[in-house]
Amino acid sequence: MLTGKNLVAGHWRSGETTFNAVEAASGKPIEPAFAEASSADVGDACEAAAQAQSTFGALALKDRAAFLRLAADKIDALGDILTQRAMLESGLPEARLNGERGRTVGQLRLFADEVEDGAWQGLRIDHADAGRTPPKPDLRMRKIPLGPVAVFGASNFPLAFSVAGGDTASALTAGCCVVVKGHPAHPGTSELVAGAISAALKECGLPQGVFSLLNGTDYALGEALVKDPRIAAVGFTGSRAGGLALMEHAASRDVPIPVYAEMSSVNPVVLMPGRMAEAAADLAQAYVASLSMGAGQFCTNPGIVLAVDGEHTAQFIGAARAALEGVPAQTMLTGGIRDAYESGIDTLGAQTGAELVGTGAEGTGPCGRSYVYTVSAADFRSNPAFEQEVFGPSSIIVRCTDLDEVADILSGMEGQLTATLHMAQTDHEAACALLPILEQRAGRIIANAWPTGVDVTHAMVHGGPFPATSDGRSTSVGTLAIDRFLRPVSYQDMPASLLPAGLREGTSGTLVRVNGTWRLP
Amino acid sequence: MLTGKNLVAGHWRSGETTFNAVEAASGKPIEPAFAEASSADVGDACEAAAQAQSTFGALALKDRAAFLRLAADKIDALGDILTQRAMLESGLPEARLNGERGRTVGQLRLFADEVEDGAWQGLRIDHADAGRTPPKPDLRMRKIPLGPVAVFGASNFPLAFSVAGGDTASALTAGCCVVVKGHPAHPGTSELVAGAISAALKECGLPQGVFSLLNGTDYALGEALVKDPRIAAVGFTGSRAGGLALMEHAASRDVPIPVYAEMSSVNPVVLMPGRMAEAAADLAQAYVASLSMGAGQFCTNPGIVLAVDGEHTAQFIGAARAALEGVPAQTMLTGGIRDAYESGIDTLGAQTGAELVGTGAEGTGPCGRSYVYTVSAADFRSNPAFEQEVFGPSSIIVRCTDLDEVADILSGMEGQLTATLHMAQTDHEAACALLPILEQRAGRIIANAWPTGVDVTHAMVHGGPFPATSDGRSTSVGTLAIDRFLRPVSYQDMPASLLPAGLREGTSGTLVRVNGTWRLP
Repeated sequence: MLTGKNLVAGHWRSGETTFNAVEAASGKPIEPAFAEASSADVGDACEAAAQAQSTFGALALKDRAAFLRLAADKIDALGDILTQRAMLESGLPEARLNGERGRTVGQLRLFADEVEDGAWQGLRIDHADAGRTPPKPDLRMRKIPLGPVAVFGASNFPLAFSVAGGDTASALTAGCCVVVKGHPAHPGTSELVAGAISAALKECGLPQGVFSLLNGTDYALGEALVKDPRIAAVGFTGSRAGGLALMEHAASRDVPIPVYAEMSSVNPVVLMPGRMAEAAADLAQAYVASLSMGAGQFCTNPGIVLAVDGEHTAQFIGAARAALEGVPAQTMLTGGIRDAYESGIDTLGAQTGAELVGTGAEGTGPCGRSYVYTVSAADFRSNPAFEQEVFGPSSIIVRCTDLDEVADILSGMEGQLTATLHMAQTDHEAACALLPILEQRAGRIIANAWPTGVDVTHAMVHGGPFPATSDGRSTSVGTLAIDRFLRPVSYQDMPASLLPAGLREGTSGTLVRVNGTWRLP
Repeated sequence: MLTGKNLVAGHWRSGETTFNAVEAASGKPIEPAFAEASSADVGDACEAAAQAQSTFGALALKDRAAFLRLAADKIDALGDILTQRAMLESGLPEARLNGERGRTVGQLRLFADEVEDGAWQGLRIDHADAGRTPPKPDLRMRKIPLGPVAVFGASNFPLAFSVAGGDTASALTAGCCVVVKGHPAHPGTSELVAGAISAALKECGLPQGVFSLLNGTDYALGEALVKDPRIAAVGFTGSRAGGLALMEHAASRDVPIPVYAEMSSVNPVVLMPGRMAEAAADLAQAYVASLSMGAGQFCTNPGIVLAVDGEHTAQFIGAARAALEGVPAQTMLTGGIRDAYESGIDTLGAQTGAELVGTGAEGTGPCGRSYVYTVSAADFRSNPAFEQEVFGPSSIIVRCTDLDEVADILSGMEGQLTATLHMAQTDHEAACALLPILEQRAGRIIANAWPTGVDVTHAMVHGGPFPATSDGRSTSVGTLAIDRFLRPVSYQDMPASLLPAGLREGTSGTLVRVNGTWRLP
């Protein structure tokens, strides 16, 4: 059923060298072998994307939306075949992957609605005023697609942040063609999804250059893709090292391009004293559930918890230890991720002041065992190693003297995707003083929940200051993600017949700003 | 009257070394001497900005607007003193500088209105839905200021793109504190404007750290400013070399920051055959007026004109030659700019195929003489030197075989601030085919006008793909410029009393998106 080929603008192409996916649970190779994309494949995919760009970018909004909806339907229709292959390759459980398929197609459908909403075009019209000195020209603005986007599939969301994931959905919504560099941990999953997108393009009568999928295990493939002059932007979710490398490649081009890399975050969680007095043990239960969910392989894993030392924090630590005992080891996404996790845990445990709170059950095979450490604020502050993300089911509880020390630690932290406050009514005043710090540090601030859920909606920010992402001005989840792949163009005194749809008088059909006044249709 | 000092958060500071401004017309030094800002001045200005950031960023919108209006009033009140000093330092004529003062204060007042409009906050609210699986949290988004911005004053707009110019206005509007690196060609003009801003801060009871002005002639000053860890973004208008250097500094930081550099553009103008048949001679008159205005020292100078060779183009060239004869030489901004211009003209004239169409009058002193060259499309295409910006009153007419060759040349050009079409009704069909190319190449597409006017309004884009700017996703003129200095933050399940103003139910007072639906107050 799987071809093991790369999809270059509608053509399935084999290659000279191949690699195999590996069964996450056993570490054994799975058939078929997959072709490593060649530099010719990169060039041809990018050229086809560039050729298709003007057609796809100028498509009527309803047609672009119809394509996204059809792609969603075709991915949904893959059903159990897709789930089974993704389970094999990622080691993630069936329910999670069915849920992730729902998230993926829901995302595409939300973005289809968003295409039709049209406000993302940022339409503005300023009418001429010949009587002004100097005469005021007629000016009309809209946002247009940046051009072909390179999307790097993430290992930890083989569906929702991979081939047809958030970056692909937002780029297509913006009218950008997409060349995906599939994650080598799940090439079969990637091929199935790419086939669905290609079929949707065909059925919609759109050029196949709108979408290509390239597989490979060599970093040079990603580098070639980012450096291809026809690529106009990059979307990436992965490690900090990977993201930084892509940023360098993009900056070294003759024409530098934006890179949207979602890289690393330890997602600080503050346990405020009032709330701890109410519910330390309950918080500990929820904490352990959050940090160990999905073997801790989430960008928003609660890696660092800050609490004021004392009776309730001791209670929290004790309850966390107890809760950990019931946590089974879970298969990790790849052997490489498992090895990096174990090495990260070893490094963490060896730091001065690191005390082991407890661990989950030990597993067999390529499993991740949960670990929680605790450290004093003084030791934490004197050693940046504690702030490094250890990707997997681990977390550190930092015992602080008082809330001033909590504030100091937060102020000194790197940029984060999320920051969380657990608080009771009595904590609000103190929380209010922390909020300006958290706003400076994170893209999302959460009250009384754990950060591991990321809703796909209009007001979501899954982003944050460097190094959480390469570009804190954007989000990679939610409808604002479209904005990343657009740029404004202004038309001055353009005859009506030459203006694009939407900018001709009375044709916007969406939110438009006319002479400074916002108007709804 | 002038102190010759740097303004560090309200304190006028002298320095160990000094430099003098130079009278543009005579090349002679002018009193007083100005202190070169030290690295301590950079550090103190940035620290004060960082300290003031939370106060200024959290200011009620009406208070921020009142400050911008008061700053405008105080700059306006400088009146003739400001004009005279700017004339001396820049060599620009009185009427132009009075106009530029009007533009500068008009810009500040427009941005004050924009602060109060509030839609730039990008407010979005998604209500919770406990019944959904999984339960949907309450999410609310707004955009917050990035943090202190380093603004580099431009030489060619000593008022409108300098100390209180577009970058400063848009950064302050976004709620960002500003540290200006003044252009060394007009330190006296800079000091006067900085004094007005400082007085406005004082009268509004705002921290002086919101604004500082640092003068200096050493590139190291700009580098230190961009590399200061408290700076969160950079605004720059100047040469390509300068902009590229700032991009490198910003990318080399531990925490890379966005650079908005408006660098260079040759602003291609296409003379369509139908329009040429109607009015070749009139077009030539307007062309020469546009290219020589302000000694050609505009970012949007029409540096390259594309026309289909033949009778009308010959007529255009002849009329341009005649018009040039009446163009006086004009004082250029600095001796360095004049030298670079002359060297650029020499280089241009020495290229294979470059034929001199004509020149303006020769001047005395540091004047710029107007030059127009013509070249065949074949020679133009074989030599990238023709596409380099020569900053000053010069332009090249490229004679093409047909419109296909015009399209080919446009497709191969670098990113531009503007692209222009002169066309008659009969040209519309052919123009329509060129538009998608122009959209890919430029930030603003102009019909039947010359590019040198840049209106400050809502629908203006003064930006464009690299290397016209470092970041084609933005504009440095018009109200959309605010967007450059903002980033989104999302609040999840936050108690109402802890939500910022605007995100509490019913308090937005501006455009807000609620559960996906756009609402006006």
